[in-house]
Amino acid sequence: MESAEASFAPRPLLRTRLTARFGLAHPILSAPMAFIAGGALADAVSQAGGLGLVGGGYAGLLPGEPELYEELPLLQGRRHGVGFITWALQQRPWVLDELLGSFTPTCIMLSFGDPRPFAQHLHQLRIPLLCQVQTLQQARLAVEAGATAIVAQGQEAGGHGGARSTLPLVPELADYLARQSPDTLLLAAGGIMDGRGLAAALLLGADGVVMGSRFVACRQARTALAALQRIIQANGDETVRTTAIDALRGLPWSDVYSYRVLHNALTRQWAHREAEARSMYGSWSERYEQARMNQDFDTAAVAVGEGVGLIDDAPDAQAIIQRTVELAALLLGRGTAQYGLPGKREDLG
Amino acid sequence: MESAEASFAPRPLLRTRLTARFGLAHPILSAPMAFIAGGALADAVSQAGGLGLVGGGYAGLLPGEPELYEELPLLQGRRHGVGFITWALQQRPWVLDELLGSFTPTCIMLSFGDPRPFAQHLHQLRIPLLCQVQTLQQARLAVEAGATAIVAQGQEAGGHGGARSTLPLVPELADYLARQSPDTLLLAAGGIMDGRGLAAALLLGADGVVMGSRFVACRQARTALAALQRIIQANGDETVRTTAIDALRGLPWSDVYSYRVLHNALTRQWAHREAEARSMYGSWSERYEQARMNQDFDTAAVAVGEGVGLIDDAPDAQAIIQRTVELAALLLGRGTAQYGLPGKREDLG
Repeated sequence: MESAEASFAPRPLLRTRLTARFGLAHPILSAPMAFIAGGALADAVSQAGGLGLVGGGYAGLLPGEPELYEELPLLQGRRHGVGFITWALQQRPWVLDELLGSFTPTCIMLSFGDPRPFAQHLHQLRIPLLCQVQTLQQARLAVEAGATAIVAQGQEAGGHGGARSTLPLVPELADYLARQSPDTLLLAAGGIMDGRGLAAALLLGADGVVMGSRFVACRQARTALAALQRIIQANGDETVRTTAIDALRGLPWSDVYSYRVLHNALTRQWAHREAEARSMYGSWSERYEQARMNQDFDTAAVAVGEGVGLIDDAPDAQAIIQRTVELAALLLGRGTAQYGLPGKREDLG
Repeated sequence: MESAEASFAPRPLLRTRLTARFGLAHPILSAPMAFIAGGALADAVSQAGGLGLVGGGYAGLLPGEPELYEELPLLQGRRHGVGFITWALQQRPWVLDELLGSFTPTCIMLSFGDPRPFAQHLHQLRIPLLCQVQTLQQARLAVEAGATAIVAQGQEAGGHGGARSTLPLVPELADYLARQSPDTLLLAAGGIMDGRGLAAALLLGADGVVMGSRFVACRQARTALAALQRIIQANGDETVRTTAIDALRGLPWSDVYSYRVLHNALTRQWAHREAEARSMYGSWSERYEQARMNQDFDTAAVAVGEGVGLIDDAPDAQAIIQRTVELAALLLGRGTAQYGLPGKREDLG
C-alpha cells in the first residue's frame, strides 16, 4: 500500500504549517462526518494529497453508523484520521481504546465536549489530537489538552455546531494562539466550499481547512441519492440551524450545539419551536429513524452547511481537492510560497 | 472644502471596481449605523480615502437620533452616503424626499426591507442605490431595484441582521451576480474588522467592504464611553443575536431580523425567551429608553458584532482605514493590482 501512495504524488501548491506537520500535499482535511465519511472518502482525500478523516461519530451509540473495523482497513498504509463526537465517546470510552489497540490513525479529532479526559492516552501514543471548537473558551480547553491543532468551526457548517461564525472566529483564535500557544496549528471549518473559501481562510490566519459539506456531495461519500439531489438543488437560504431535531429524535445534545440541515417538512414545522420540541424529547425517535432508513427526507434531516448554494455537482473527492487548491493558489497568486501568517498584532507592530 | 479634500491624497493600495466607480482610494465604506454614525465619522472616513455613510437610521421615528440637517453639512463638498432602515423610511418617506431636496449624497443605502419603492426616485436623480441584503432572495429584489451595489451582510454583524454568514454568502452572491447582473457591485459586511477580513472578502468575490463595528470603536463615532469600555474588553464569545430586545422595547422589526449586541444583564435574562418577550411587546419601552439615555448598559444594549474580540482600541477612523488596507495589501501581496474576481464557474471552466 505504501508503494501505491508513493506512486501518486499530488503537486503541492500551498505549503503551510499543516502540510509540513502532517506531510500533506494540500492543506485540506475532510471532516469526520458521522454516517457520511467512511473509509472510501477518507482514502480518496488522502490519496489526493489531503488528509481524510473517518467519521467515528457517536462511537456506536446510534444504530447504522459505519463500522470502524470495516472502514479503517480501507486505509491501511495511507494517512488518515478518525473523529468522534466527544460527549458520545465519553459514554463509551472503550471504543477509542480498542481502536488504538488495532489501528494507528494519523490523528484523532474530537468535537463537541471536553477533550481533556482523552488527551493523556493520545499523547502517550504520540497520536496528534485535533480539537474542533466553536468558541474562544473552548479553544482554551483545547490548548490545555495539548491539542496539535484547533479546528475553529463556524456555525455556517453543516450538521452540529455552535453560534460563532468562521470569518471573525478564525482571526480571533489566530491572535489567541499567537499569544498563548504559537505552536498549535489552527484550521478553519464552516462555509468553506471552494478555492475562494480556502484562500480566505489562509489569509484569516488558518494553517489549513476542514471541509465537510463539500465532501457530502462527492462520489465517495455515503450520502443517500435522494439527499444528494436535494443538496445539489438547494441554495444557501434553504438551511436552518436548530436544536429541535435532536430533541424530537431523543439525542442528548447539549443545547449549546445545534444542528444545521436543509429545510424540509420537519424543519418548517419544528425549527422555531425548540422549547416545545424539548418538552417532547424523544417522541419522534422511531418515526425519525424509520424515515432515515427509508431515505424519506421530508422527515429525516439532510445535514449540510450554508455553503450548499455553492454545490452543484458530486464529483470525485480528488476533483474537489484539485480544483479547490488550484483556485486558491490562483487567487493567492503566490504559487508554492510558504503560508503561516502571524497574528495582527505582530503584523501591525 | 473641495480644496481641503484635494490637498489630502491617500495612497491607493487596492484598486477594485468599487474604488473606480466611486473614485475612492480604498475599498472601504463605513456603515450608516443608527445613532452611532454621524457626520464626523463619515467625514473622517471619506477624508481617509474610504466612503463614509451617515446613519439616517429610523428616519426620525425614534427619539435621540442624529439630526441629518446638522450632520450632513459637516460633509459638504466631500463624498458621503446616507443609510436608512427601509421599513422605517417606508413609514416616513418624506424624510428621503426632503433630504434629496437639500443635499446630494454620493449614494443612498437601504437596509431591512423592500428597496423597490424608493428606486425610481433615486434613479431619476442619478444617485446610486446601495442595497444591504441578508439572503439570496433579497439580492434578487435588489437587482430588480437596479441597485448599483449589493451589500451582503452576514449575521456576524453588529446590530440588526439576518441569519446567513459572510463567508458563504459573499461567494454565493458573487456567483449569482456574475450570472444575472455582472455590472452590479458586491460589498461584504459582517465580521470584517481588519486587513485580514478585507483581504478575505476580496478573495471571496467582493469589490469592497462595509465595516460597522470596527468604526463603533473610533474617536469620531457617537459611541458612549461606557459602551466603548465594554466593547474594548469583550471577546467574540460575548455577543448574542436576539429578537427579544426589539420586542421588549416595542420596535416593530420583522422577526426575520434580529439584533446582535453584547451580552449584559438584559440579554442574560431575555435573549433566549423570544416568544415570551414578544408576548410582552413594548412593556420595557420607557425603562429601556431611560437606560439608553443614562448610558446604563446593563439594561440598554450595546450593538456590536461578533468581531468585537478583534477590537482593542478606539483610534481615529483614518488609522483604522490605513492599517486595514496596509495589512490587506500585504496579505494579498499584489500592491496596486486590480481586483474584481470572476465567479467560480468562470475560474474553473
